[in-house]
Amino acid sequence: MSSTVARPPAGPRTLRPRSDASVAARVARSAAETTGARLRTEDFPQWLEGRRAAHRFQVDRIPFGELAGWSFEAATGNLVHRSGRFFTVEGLHVTADTGPFREWYQPIIKQPEVGILGILAKEFDGVLHFLMQAKMEPGNRNLLQLSPTVQATRSNYTKVHRGADVKYIEYFTRPGRGRVLADVLQSEHGSWFFRKSNRNMIVEAVGEVPLHDDFCWLTLGQIGELLHLDNVVNMDSRTVLACAPFPDADHGALHADTDLLSWFTAERSRHDVRAERVPLDRLPGWQRSEWTIDHEEDRYFRVVAVAVQAGSREVAGWTQPLFEPLGLGVTAFLTRRIGGVPHVLVHARVEGGFLDTVELGPTVQYTPDNYAHVAAEDRPPFLDLVLDADPSRVRYEAVHSEEGGRFLNAESRYLLVDADEDQAPLDPPPGYRWATPGQLTSLVRHGHYLNVQARTLLACLNATGVRI
Amino acid sequence: MSSTVARPPAGPRTLRPRSDASVAARVARSAAETTGARLRTEDFPQWLEGRRAAHRFQVDRIPFGELAGWSFEAATGNLVHRSGRFFTVEGLHVTADTGPFREWYQPIIKQPEVGILGILAKEFDGVLHFLMQAKMEPGNRNLLQLSPTVQATRSNYTKVHRGADVKYIEYFTRPGRGRVLADVLQSEHGSWFFRKSNRNMIVEAVGEVPLHDDFCWLTLGQIGELLHLDNVVNMDSRTVLACAPFPDADHGALHADTDLLSWFTAERSRHDVRAERVPLDRLPGWQRSEWTIDHEEDRYFRVVAVAVQAGSREVAGWTQPLFEPLGLGVTAFLTRRIGGVPHVLVHARVEGGFLDTVELGPTVQYTPDNYAHVAAEDRPPFLDLVLDADPSRVRYEAVHSEEGGRFLNAESRYLLVDADEDQAPLDPPPGYRWATPGQLTSLVRHGHYLNVQARTLLACLNATGVRI
Repeated sequence: MSSTVARPPAGPRTLRPRSDASVAARVARSAAETTGARLRTEDFPQWLEGRRAAHRFQVDRIPFGELAGWSFEAATGNLVHRSGRFFTVEGLHVTADTGPFREWYQPIIKQPEVGILGILAKEFDGVLHFLMQAKMEPGNRNLLQLSPTVQATRSNYTKVHRGADVKYIEYFTRPGRGRVLADVLQSEHGSWFFRKSNRNMIVEAVGEVPLHDDFCWLTLGQIGELLHLDNVVNMDSRTVLACAPFPDADHGALHADTDLLSWFTAERSRHDVRAERVPLDRLPGWQRSEWTIDHEEDRYFRVVAVAVQAGSREVAGWTQPLFEPLGLGVTAFLTRRIGGVPHVLVHARVEGGFLDTVELGPTVQYTPDNYAHVAAEDRPPFLDLVLDADPSRVRYEAVHSEEGGRFLNAESRYLLVDADEDQAPLDPPPGYRWATPGQLTSLVRHGHYLNVQARTLLACLNATGVRI
Repeated sequence: MSSTVARPPAGPRTLRPRSDASVAARVARSAAETTGARLRTEDFPQWLEGRRAAHRFQVDRIPFGELAGWSFEAATGNLVHRSGRFFTVEGLHVTADTGPFREWYQPIIKQPEVGILGILAKEFDGVLHFLMQAKMEPGNRNLLQLSPTVQATRSNYTKVHRGADVKYIEYFTRPGRGRVLADVLQSEHGSWFFRKSNRNMIVEAVGEVPLHDDFCWLTLGQIGELLHLDNVVNMDSRTVLACAPFPDADHGALHADTDLLSWFTAERSRHDVRAERVPLDRLPGWQRSEWTIDHEEDRYFRVVAVAVQAGSREVAGWTQPLFEPLGLGVTAFLTRRIGGVPHVLVHARVEGGFLDTVELGPTVQYTPDNYAHVAAEDRPPFLDLVLDADPSRVRYEAVHSEEGGRFLNAESRYLLVDADEDQAPLDPPPGYRWATPGQLTSLVRHGHYLNVQARTLLACLNATGVRI
């Protein structure tokens, strides 16, 4: 990272330790601290309402014909922007060799650019605080949620003339402005995006950091408290926080790390998934009307368009397509203590838009409405166990939104549910495996192991201090 | 991995240590042992010649018209097998935003199946030995080389009726037959394969292992000695050996692990590479004749066909296409001691067939003939430094073959070349970074970090005991 003199001495002082255990200790200290040095947690709701009042956005559904700059391409029916930028809505044809659904067609969002999701960190009173932003996204039911310091597409941050638009971006693009605590490419929703990944970064700032409107400093413990509330901490924040270098304190596990990796490799190898992009107007089972593109059975999701009007002076309005899932999702880890050590049951999930076949998801990740019509033997494993869970077993529950810049009212109940040997055996069905939070924390340093929903639950586990 | 009783006790005895340092110590012990308990290194050449005499293969070039079962598909000109199996030769159109070549067309091999490359290990006299196979591959100039215990495609090992064909496969597909020491999906040549990866496995056998003809047990130290010879240890062996859990003893490095990962993430994000499959008969610059598909400037590689005739009774002959690179490759790590710790200079390389944009390659990986025509300022960095290296700086050199089942006479000089600050500064050009062998060993536990050529050099470094 240095841009130093031409001939530095290659002596021992040039060497750095490979890893620095004090970082994990400082992250843990921040997670334990629920009183912030800057904004008190009890003052947060008022601060957020203040930001909401300052912006006053309005989002309305519009017919596709009123989209400005967006149109259905003649040859393919793909929904594209005339600039060639942003994203496109295309079709996907997936064939898989396992599961109740072995072949399907669906619309999919293609957005090849890698964006940056970055959180700036800084110590106040000896505790790491994280710079969070109150940000409006048109797909959020409550519009304003807490986002990372920076959410920027590559066009945003590489084009010099737009650079000034993204506050704090220089900490994430210019070496020397901070110390990197985490930096990894992670997948986004494989059911709705075609091979999309974003760069998840946490950077500890060097020197003073100016505080702009819409931004606030919070400890991980404070963010953990907000993660107990519905629809406050947005998806981008959750995935970045999942990548924080929390201490990996589990010395024992049901499966050694090498065996867990081997199982994952076997899962990736055993699935034969083909996903081919096809024209949007040639998707069997899907139909386009003036306002929506729907599945003929009114399942899964629909493609819609919205117009955003901004009340504040600086920001103009715009129009864009969004994906609107039908029904509330249920996303849960079953949890068990094994030999006294907490474990969660991960599921090697096939999603059509994954770069590589499978990633590790929560035990349960479904929209129950989509399974209302399937045969009993095809009900997803563990789904009913979570839906019918005795409240005494629920260790964590909150409703969170998926990315509000692309998805409309895409909400899921996220849960951690304690289970026993009868409900979830140590030797689970094929495709499932017990892993410790420490094992997941070590995997999430690398891309494409944990899907975005598993990362949300890992963030909730690590930041809230929930005891499983 | 257990298929045990329905209700095991979830007590402390269920837990395993996350990692087992004794494995790395045993791997290091095997690398230090150059005398085998079974076959002595000095007897190896005679053993290999014996296997060669036992098989007597003949490989002849044939025109495409004499390929049995293979033909050019009418609509696309793609070269396909009538069974739909094996692989296809298709076209690729690549656009990149960096480098002297920013857009090109080329033939590419598409083989979506994940194969297993597996080496079986077992202790004799307290030292790990590895079960290697003398295996004929039609593309090898000397036909017979030392391969892993198992090289099997998914069709081979999942179809029950073919299962008996692959000796020792049960150790790699059935839990409980051994202890997994390494298991990871790794990429193959991104310049010739479209997103191909294979499962690289090392499994320590439980119990007695029968020794079949064509197989021999060798220590890592013995294999290390054979790696000093030209064209003896095949590519599949080298990539699997690179994944062995060698001790990661480097406590200091020029860049901390987190900073190295961050640099890699930035490299993957900064490149905008698009690779689209196109019909083989619509590749500008390439022409098909009766015997070959060539580039009009006689560069890069050609597609050819061969007939294999077997002298032994058990194996029938066959015909198949192969890619034949033009010219000898040069593949090298520049090396330096930094603060007393060995480092190699890795290069974040774009290859059109990579699953994800870039992987870490050697400092130099080129066929010099392909660059004879480019402007001086577009000469690849460090290439001339390696070509002109003073012999006193060459720490390792041998010619190795690439995968002889797909590539004909595809040979490269692999080198480790010592450099100084004038030649290769600590602050290298964009796209290059100093890393320790220990850092690469920790990365290679995960897929798609190190390309296959870097893995060959890592295997040579770790197994030969070469001092850099």
